[in-house]
Amino acid sequence: MKISVITLFPDMFDKVFNQSMLWKAQDKKLVEFELIDLRQFGLGPRHQVDDTPYGGGDGMLLKPEPLFAAVEDAKTRNPDAKVVLMTPKGKIWDQARAVELANSGDNYIFICPHYEGYDERVLALVDYQVSIGKFILTGGELPAMTVIDSIVRLIPGVLGGETSAEIESFSDGDNYEYPQYTRPAEFRGMKVPEVLLNGNHAEIAKWRAENAPKSASEK
Amino acid sequence: MKISVITLFPDMFDKVFNQSMLWKAQDKKLVEFELIDLRQFGLGPRHQVDDTPYGGGDGMLLKPEPLFAAVEDAKTRNPDAKVVLMTPKGKIWDQARAVELANSGDNYIFICPHYEGYDERVLALVDYQVSIGKFILTGGELPAMTVIDSIVRLIPGVLGGETSAEIESFSDGDNYEYPQYTRPAEFRGMKVPEVLLNGNHAEIAKWRAENAPKSASEK
Repeated sequence: MKISVITLFPDMFDKVFNQSMLWKAQDKKLVEFELIDLRQFGLGPRHQVDDTPYGGGDGMLLKPEPLFAAVEDAKTRNPDAKVVLMTPKGKIWDQARAVELANSGDNYIFICPHYEGYDERVLALVDYQVSIGKFILTGGELPAMTVIDSIVRLIPGVLGGETSAEIESFSDGDNYEYPQYTRPAEFRGMKVPEVLLNGNHAEIAKWRAENAPKSASEK
Repeated sequence: MKISVITLFPDMFDKVFNQSMLWKAQDKKLVEFELIDLRQFGLGPRHQVDDTPYGGGDGMLLKPEPLFAAVEDAKTRNPDAKVVLMTPKGKIWDQARAVELANSGDNYIFICPHYEGYDERVLALVDYQVSIGKFILTGGELPAMTVIDSIVRLIPGVLGGETSAEIESFSDGDNYEYPQYTRPAEFRGMKVPEVLLNGNHAEIAKWRAENAPKSASEK
């Protein structure tokens, strides 16, 4: 899978893409990342990428010309890639979507908007509009990293043995809802439930099913 | 606001915390970040932080001792901080929650789990369990960065002039739902809607209200 990312802050991705699972996926040649600095497609001597909104309003919008030029440039090296725009107006990302995009066989170009938004005509370039939730962020970089992490970890081989079976069991986003414990069996007076220590697999499965709330909980 | 982050991958935060809005917030002394490497609290000569789950199951869990030691260490420098655990079992983050935590006057310690999870006894340390959505990620780092970005941008002074009023208008997470345009008025045959060019503020407001879908849309 080839993933191109168009951003005004390519440096933000360096350490994230070069740590942990995302680094391993590249090292195993299962994914290839390309960072594209939107600024280099800016207009004029100051490489302008943003301008004020027609009709008034606060803040600056990304202009269409640099975004079109950046996507067209990305497509010269990633020709049939689907274009994903990170936007608060997009469909909320979930695990079913991550599985779909991981299994599609497609390559991707992510656009990370910044400032207060983007010129609506950019949508002519876009295959998917994606939001990660009902909260406001400074830019599309963290959402793009999040979506990329959720997709890449599902590519067979990236996580080691647990491939397609794992994808299956995770697809409802409700994995690991039961409490888990590891050694020591007692820590500061807090004991691991006895049932988990006795090796009776039927009892353990029953306890886990009974202790797996389906809805989000909060202390 | 002081924010401590407990993670096995402190390097991932470097460039993210030192770019754009999060850098400006630190430069203006409105927020202070501290990165704490969980590995330094690992047990034994190999600094072990994880172990297999009681009762069986795939993967490794974070052990309780290093997490308790790391939080207690963080509290020596960030004494009354609330502890936020990033976990798929947590309450889904939203803008109302970001406003609440930004305005609370509290400091925070974020715990970023990794591997397949954490020993449930860690919850004894935790004030908030937070998830950013119904999708599975490799670790808690990207969710923590996301939540931190959404909180810090709301601290008065961080974004400049638009402070409390902006917080208000953003609190439903439905900002900027109407299409926005900037120059040029025509680009590759795509024209900015005429109404936005004519300077009639009542008509512009009417057009924007009519073109602001409340539900998530997707091309």
